[in-house]
Amino acid sequence: MTSPVIKIDPKLDLVLVREIDVPVELVWKAWTTPEHLREWFVPKPWTITACELDVRPGGVFSTVMRSPEGKEFPNAGCYLEVTPNERLIFTDALLPGYRPAAKPFFTAVLELARNGAGTKYTAIAIHGDEEARKNHEDMGFFEGWGTVVDQMVAHIKAQGARA
Amino acid sequence: MTSPVIKIDPKLDLVLVREIDVPVELVWKAWTTPEHLREWFVPKPWTITACELDVRPGGVFSTVMRSPEGKEFPNAGCYLEVTPNERLIFTDALLPGYRPAAKPFFTAVLELARNGAGTKYTAIAIHGDEEARKNHEDMGFFEGWGTVVDQMVAHIKAQGARA
Repeated sequence: MTSPVIKIDPKLDLVLVREIDVPVELVWKAWTTPEHLREWFVPKPWTITACELDVRPGGVFSTVMRSPEGKEFPNAGCYLEVTPNERLIFTDALLPGYRPAAKPFFTAVLELARNGAGTKYTAIAIHGDEEARKNHEDMGFFEGWGTVVDQMVAHIKAQGARA
Repeated sequence: MTSPVIKIDPKLDLVLVREIDVPVELVWKAWTTPEHLREWFVPKPWTITACELDVRPGGVFSTVMRSPEGKEFPNAGCYLEVTPNERLIFTDALLPGYRPAAKPFFTAVLELARNGAGTKYTAIAIHGDEEARKNHEDMGFFEGWGTVVDQMVAHIKAQGARA
């Protein structure tokens, strides 16, 4: 169920919904453990070269993304809500400890629901204005977030095969 | 106790500590009930002409402040943490539902601790840069937040006398 405080505005927000055949607990683990997240969280051949996750409200969510040319892009944000196996909300409008950030762009809401043996996976990007939504869409929100879901599912299955 | 996720930086943040002789429960009620908050939350002769509080993470914290000349100043923010009688955190970096705001300024942390029959009252303003801290201090953070604590205590005592 969508959080009752989240009000999606189609003019401002982007929503990706997918049904995937891995259980919610493993999706949660893939999202909340640095050594898992760094394996799938950017579309390849980009990589994640550093990742720090303090999975509690006010805690750090930071990654450093590296382009194929070797340029690094640090991203820092802050968790807002953490409900294991159900909902994770974080934002780049705040740094860790809820400190206002210089360049707010969006708040992300990840919602997981059991769907048979798999998961209904919903990712929502909440923006402050229409321009930010449009920029995010033009940057490839749907392709990018869709690609990393595929990468996450493949990573989870490979882990299972190895276990 | 200060929240473990809050890291005060003296270059960026402002802290007001007061010992007041009203109990934490009544301070909490004064902060979280619109009909109480509007009576004390701006230094008089300013007034609050509207107030909406949805006291849960992601919920609205909004007031409209009116100057003695009759000009109105709306403020909208969002609660981040709500621990009754202990801690209230809200920010103007996010609108309700965690939507990034256009003009982030600060995050406020209110901490209450029992102190005999009274309360140790700590208000912290967390800023993104030194300029924002300085502006807040120049706007009269200490006088303003100090004055409204006095107004709040007087309001609570008047309520008690009426009860």
